[in-house]
Amino acid sequence: MSLELAQLDLKALVRTIPDYPKPGILFRDITTLIEHPEGFRESVERLANAHRGLGVTHVAGIEARGFIFGAGVAIALGVGFVPIRKKGKLPGQTIGQNYALEYGVDTIEIHDDVLDGSHRVLLVDDLIATGGTAIAAVGLIRRTGAVIEHAGFVIDLPDIGGAEKLETEGVTVTSLIAFEGH
Amino acid sequence: MSLELAQLDLKALVRTIPDYPKPGILFRDITTLIEHPEGFRESVERLANAHRGLGVTHVAGIEARGFIFGAGVAIALGVGFVPIRKKGKLPGQTIGQNYALEYGVDTIEIHDDVLDGSHRVLLVDDLIATGGTAIAAVGLIRRTGAVIEHAGFVIDLPDIGGAEKLETEGVTVTSLIAFEGH
Repeated sequence: MSLELAQLDLKALVRTIPDYPKPGILFRDITTLIEHPEGFRESVERLANAHRGLGVTHVAGIEARGFIFGAGVAIALGVGFVPIRKKGKLPGQTIGQNYALEYGVDTIEIHDDVLDGSHRVLLVDDLIATGGTAIAAVGLIRRTGAVIEHAGFVIDLPDIGGAEKLETEGVTVTSLIAFEGH
Repeated sequence: MSLELAQLDLKALVRTIPDYPKPGILFRDITTLIEHPEGFRESVERLANAHRGLGVTHVAGIEARGFIFGAGVAIALGVGFVPIRKKGKLPGQTIGQNYALEYGVDTIEIHDDVLDGSHRVLLVDDLIATGGTAIAAVGLIRRTGAVIEHAGFVIDLPDIGGAEKLETEGVTVTSLIAFEGH
């Protein structure tokens, strides 16, 4: 009899929805994971445990699914949570960063008075695909003067290459689940 | 020497931004609360502790700030988290509920396959003002067959009367901070 406990299969808790948001796309839906008490808790704990002892002072989460995991990781690490939001959603003075979408450009923002050179930030989001949003978020965080060297994602789509791009920006990427293909 | 520990003053951690999003409004900004490690953790713990022993099976949080607190409360209670999102944001089959804004109508949605009559839901959001969104969320949750008898908010604006309206819907409201006025 082994003393090793079976690890929860987080990947099996992610639902795949074909042809969403458009034909040919396999959408990886984390709502089935977070609706599962142990699945949600273990996702957050694994992301937190991967980033202990690094001097992280804040977790930054990207609106909106990144808020769900990022908030849990911040509490688990005992640090503050900094929201990165879509343009116009933060009430205070902000700095913004554009990033390319498949068609067009979007903007994310962060409050300009929360981070400075004394802070070390962990970026958390639900999924990394192209890495466009994550790289924009890293750029925003660095413009505040804060250090960001780590990012955690529940899901990586490695064939799209976003995690690799983020690593070339000097950010170590941790992900819990990988789905091959696009 | 008293053994009683001073309670953290959560209200002092909420920033007030005048004239946002329009002239005459005092916007209560929770980003300064969640950026404070103890403030964030204590907000979540107090909301969780107020709802232990009630048989809650799921926390439902309203996009987007409700995700931040609701995720923490779900993990603290050891239950699943159900996102209630703006129209078109959930990938699965949904049911929707309209609610009136000051000018116009908005819609929130929930997945139609996550809750049923065996479930007891706690609704969590950052703030209750008119209660319009919260009452729409309660309606959505009840249409799934689930029971909802409790809602928790970090901030109540009691002079606007939303919490009172929610109570007349059979929902007991807990809030951590009250700001008088509008």
